[in-house]
Amino acid sequence: VSTAAPAPLLRDLGSIVGADAVLPDSTATYLRDATEARGLGGHAVAVVLPATSADVAAVFGWCYAHDVPVVPRGGGTGFAGGCVPFGGVVLATDRLTTVRAFDPLLWRMEVEAGVRTADVRRLARENGLLFPPDPGAAEQSHIGGNVATNAEGPMRSSTASPAHGRRVSRVVVAPGEVIAVGGAARKDVAGLDLKSLLVGSEGTLGVITAVWLRLIPAPESALPVAAFYPDTASGCEAITATMGSGITASALEYLDDGALAAARRSYPGSVPEAARFLVVAEADGSRDEAERLRTELVEALGEGALAVETPEPASLWRWRDGVSIAVTTLRGGKVSEDIAVPVDRLEEAIEATVEVGRRHGLESLSWGHTGDGNLHSTFLLTRENVEEVAAAEHAAAELFVLAVRLGGTASGEHGLGVVKRGHAHWEPRIEALQQEIKQVFDPKGLLNPGKKL
Amino acid sequence: VSTAAPAPLLRDLGSIVGADAVLPDSTATYLRDATEARGLGGHAVAVVLPATSADVAAVFGWCYAHDVPVVPRGGGTGFAGGCVPFGGVVLATDRLTTVRAFDPLLWRMEVEAGVRTADVRRLARENGLLFPPDPGAAEQSHIGGNVATNAEGPMRSSTASPAHGRRVSRVVVAPGEVIAVGGAARKDVAGLDLKSLLVGSEGTLGVITAVWLRLIPAPESALPVAAFYPDTASGCEAITATMGSGITASALEYLDDGALAAARRSYPGSVPEAARFLVVAEADGSRDEAERLRTELVEALGEGALAVETPEPASLWRWRDGVSIAVTTLRGGKVSEDIAVPVDRLEEAIEATVEVGRRHGLESLSWGHTGDGNLHSTFLLTRENVEEVAAAEHAAAELFVLAVRLGGTASGEHGLGVVKRGHAHWEPRIEALQQEIKQVFDPKGLLNPGKKL
Repeated sequence: VSTAAPAPLLRDLGSIVGADAVLPDSTATYLRDATEARGLGGHAVAVVLPATSADVAAVFGWCYAHDVPVVPRGGGTGFAGGCVPFGGVVLATDRLTTVRAFDPLLWRMEVEAGVRTADVRRLARENGLLFPPDPGAAEQSHIGGNVATNAEGPMRSSTASPAHGRRVSRVVVAPGEVIAVGGAARKDVAGLDLKSLLVGSEGTLGVITAVWLRLIPAPESALPVAAFYPDTASGCEAITATMGSGITASALEYLDDGALAAARRSYPGSVPEAARFLVVAEADGSRDEAERLRTELVEALGEGALAVETPEPASLWRWRDGVSIAVTTLRGGKVSEDIAVPVDRLEEAIEATVEVGRRHGLESLSWGHTGDGNLHSTFLLTRENVEEVAAAEHAAAELFVLAVRLGGTASGEHGLGVVKRGHAHWEPRIEALQQEIKQVFDPKGLLNPGKKL
Repeated sequence: VSTAAPAPLLRDLGSIVGADAVLPDSTATYLRDATEARGLGGHAVAVVLPATSADVAAVFGWCYAHDVPVVPRGGGTGFAGGCVPFGGVVLATDRLTTVRAFDPLLWRMEVEAGVRTADVRRLARENGLLFPPDPGAAEQSHIGGNVATNAEGPMRSSTASPAHGRRVSRVVVAPGEVIAVGGAARKDVAGLDLKSLLVGSEGTLGVITAVWLRLIPAPESALPVAAFYPDTASGCEAITATMGSGITASALEYLDDGALAAARRSYPGSVPEAARFLVVAEADGSRDEAERLRTELVEALGEGALAVETPEPASLWRWRDGVSIAVTTLRGGKVSEDIAVPVDRLEEAIEATVEVGRRHGLESLSWGHTGDGNLHSTFLLTRENVEEVAAAEHAAAELFVLAVRLGGTASGEHGLGVVKRGHAHWEPRIEALQQEIKQVFDPKGLLNPGKKL
């Protein structure tokens, strides 16, 4: 694919969205995402920034009619290269920032795809509500991108229902039409569930332009607990023991030895010398209820722990948000995957990450969302070291096989994008059904080509 | 379609599942569901009761190869005729009753489609857990049927996440193959979300043979509150006021004037003379928390109420379960629909049900799941009165248009089945996408023909 933007394309797209909303291909910031840390970069003939769903449809329609690939893009914070273009037009949601509806008394909000995740959370908070999903990079990532990859991060609520919480309302589909797939009604079983099919579809079926979000009343208190363990085994045992005792934590996170070492110095408290594994849980609810739950958590997580702390919430979560950066800082680069396994296979998956890395001569570590069995398995590297990059890719590929063998998946929330494409290990019939559904939505194969499927 | 069972069909299917698992077409109990109350009945060439997923695949494969329609059937308690056959083979899940996995300490269970909903709830309860969805007829309905129509009933939990709570694990697809679409892992964004697409697909895409269920720790207490109002307006106002004050109720139900009148005499307490609307809410959590929440609910629902009671939970819910039967008893027959609207349009939808009925000369009423904006709008009739049945069908059709106009849907949880087919009022492009997806899964159009799409 040629990267030079032909004059007619720039002219035509400019006449749809305005010349200032069509950027030339030199706009490097729109050609990368977090996979830059493993050396991935793309190219495009143009970057277009439509301001309305109708403009998205018009741009999409022009591209579809002219056989030009379309790469939908949110905040560009993905870990799978899902929005990294390899030719075609980047359709960025930066200007789709309208809050279409906000009914705080009814716990709901409809926003355009380009509204930043942090702004959703802020708006909710200012009105006594909580938007539970909290993927990293909330200040950069767009809600449309979150939904397109189904990124949740630590679900900081014991009453959250993620899948019900984010519903696609509007999407632009081929050959260039806005359709309304979901409304403000909470239940709808009339049709086939297209809005759920679009969640996590990574821009391969359509361009999500607006979503309905279900908010929940903000709990009065959210009180984290941090428990340190001498090894992975005792940490994982404490996690299952906590679940087994029937305590509903609002978040259940972990850091393994390597991740803890990377972020140890900035931890807002004291880390025991012998600590090699950290579990962070949170108790939420009314003040009394959160305190009662926290006491239960302290007791359940205390079994086998070196120390159990009750840190100040804001500092702890700020620190937790910084773990990914702290890990990157270690060597300058990383390949970070997000396999998910059944909760009872978590220990195996954490140990395997380290073991697979070692076998490929790489330092490796993981942290993640324990409650969901979702690991951020990470292989450290220096970006300039081509051999390390290759070794990390091989190690990751091995890990995906392992995740599937453990009854899990190659991706819990980052999506397959370009970096994990071909690594999902689907049964042939499932692969075929997906390809045929893709064909239904995108007969010309122009939507985010080379991604996911 | 001929209803006579040809000998080769009986012989061949008998050789797959055993002769005793192939019932002749005279087995009337397999040809009806709850739409019998509006006069709907079907016919089939045979009813087959496979005992394993593999047998389901073999039977399905035989039918597909011989161009024989397949009608999947669970407990037969549906309200839309979704499992009422009009020719072909009924593939009943009665013998798919294996609990494939149950890990109470990990809050999860994998069951075959034919396990009864009440048995799931019982098994969970005996192990300190709760399976929140509670559609009516739990003693008859099968979990596979619940999932195929996405029936939830009153979600009796403040921490429930319905969509995450029930995931299709195994499904038999054309031309006759079992595929595993979901496992024990809680997150999976590798592929297109086929397991969500199957939820609510009403047997038009495949035959669900097993599902994973996510359970939650049973709350220590669940304390209902019943509030009586002089009219629909004041009741609906109290509902939005309760949401607006940020109280998370674990159930939020209503009965309008007509429904209350039907069930008034059996109410386990005293109903104020002037009561024309009832709201039932429930507070759950630890004993202290549930009591605190109940106090908040009593206060919030008290605004404008004639009386607020705190009834004994078991008697109240037993009574609530009987509302549908009490309503049927009034005239012997009914057309009961399940439109859903945004919560703020509930009052309009409740009033409209009565108004539309009146215009068609029918007594009408509604009750339902307030929190989800899900109404069971019901037109009473005598089954033998052909004119009344026709009037009720017309009234229902009007109601579907209204629901869509209010931003809602023709079906919140019953599905379209045969009785609401053609009443969903989809945009043409959405209709086309659904038809094409159906074509992907069922190229011969043999799966539950005449239903939903």
